[in-house]
Amino acid sequence: MEMNFDGIKVIGFDADDTLWVNETYFRETEEKFAELLGEYETKNKVDQELFKIEIQNLELYGYGVKSFMLSMIESALDLSNHTISQQTISDILNLGKEMITKPVELLDGVEEVLKKLESKYHLIVLTKGDLLDQERKLEKSGLSKYFKHVEVLSEKKERNYTNLLGHLGIDVNEFLMIGNSLKSDVIPILNIGARAIHIPFHTTWAHEMVSKQEEKVNNHLKLSRIEDILAYL
Amino acid sequence: MEMNFDGIKVIGFDADDTLWVNETYFRETEEKFAELLGEYETKNKVDQELFKIEIQNLELYGYGVKSFMLSMIESALDLSNHTISQQTISDILNLGKEMITKPVELLDGVEEVLKKLESKYHLIVLTKGDLLDQERKLEKSGLSKYFKHVEVLSEKKERNYTNLLGHLGIDVNEFLMIGNSLKSDVIPILNIGARAIHIPFHTTWAHEMVSKQEEKVNNHLKLSRIEDILAYL
Repeated sequence: MEMNFDGIKVIGFDADDTLWVNETYFRETEEKFAELLGEYETKNKVDQELFKIEIQNLELYGYGVKSFMLSMIESALDLSNHTISQQTISDILNLGKEMITKPVELLDGVEEVLKKLESKYHLIVLTKGDLLDQERKLEKSGLSKYFKHVEVLSEKKERNYTNLLGHLGIDVNEFLMIGNSLKSDVIPILNIGARAIHIPFHTTWAHEMVSKQEEKVNNHLKLSRIEDILAYL
Repeated sequence: MEMNFDGIKVIGFDADDTLWVNETYFRETEEKFAELLGEYETKNKVDQELFKIEIQNLELYGYGVKSFMLSMIESALDLSNHTISQQTISDILNLGKEMITKPVELLDGVEEVLKKLESKYHLIVLTKGDLLDQERKLEKSGLSKYFKHVEVLSEKKERNYTNLLGHLGIDVNEFLMIGNSLKSDVIPILNIGARAIHIPFHTTWAHEMVSKQEEKVNNHLKLSRIEDILAYL
């Protein structure tokens, strides 16, 4: 569709899977986790159980690697009927620590895009997840210098966006959000009357999936690569 | 000492152990954790090992209950030479979940003080720890309505305060911080040239302890109860 970006002054970038690789590391860790549990259940069953436990714990733990570690441990106990070895619990802790210390891998074109946009717009990062972990990733990414503000939200729902824009003194008509998740970065943004660009990442966590109905959302621009936004902004 | 609060426009309140009880719950959970590990080590040794692991993990995990849960599990594996029962790992997860779902217990006088100050000052919450957990506690506390802004920081060091005040457009001369930790709420605040009131809580986590030298910090007001600030503000 054709879109009009007149009047945009502030651009919010999602971080995980928009600026840098993230979901891929969760998928890789799930592979290793399923191998650790291989004597108890199939990969498919392990995945299902882990996802179930993650969703059960989401309200308590929120997003991020520490929550994922705790849910892996709980799933391992459940799936093995409490016979999982102590070594495996220890291995799970190490899988999580590896995720936390992984280098940050920027997605193609990200730095070039930020460099071109920073003089024309006020750029901010709006991400959800673990506060320390997101701050650390931004630091490691070398991208901090392009952003005037960084906000880690516990959720990306309409209310969170409305509060944040209010607090930062940003009018919805001046705000454009760019991210890989229809559910978190696009739909709530359109619902509050701001504009959004969707740049899907090849991997999406099941929890971020939207229904076929919601996929039909429109009034936003969908692009395949982040560099493509330069043709519009 | 006598202190002058002329020109103060914004008051920052620490949350844990300043507005509500927190450290007490960690101490209670440590008691229960030591009981679970009772067949392996004395309470004293269990405490020491847990603290050591928490500090080792602090840079990776940051503050908060989830970090504490992960460090309890790691300590239990270490202290038992990987013979800890699966049931005990499960019990540790439940101890953590209990902490997260505990009701919020306001400290005496807090609500009265906020009620009296909210019309004269711009009140904000500045806390560190887990984003979701702190948001949830503020919600449960019923105190949200008194605060114009809530900020959860990954650390409370000079740089974090300077960035935050800059971002909120608050001059150091207009800012007063109130909290229970000399290390987090008082010393860095004095170092950036703002003012601070210290209201100690009866329990302090070892990591928040300061040296005898640092305890001699002055140029701040020390009070025993939060209501006492009303005599000054």
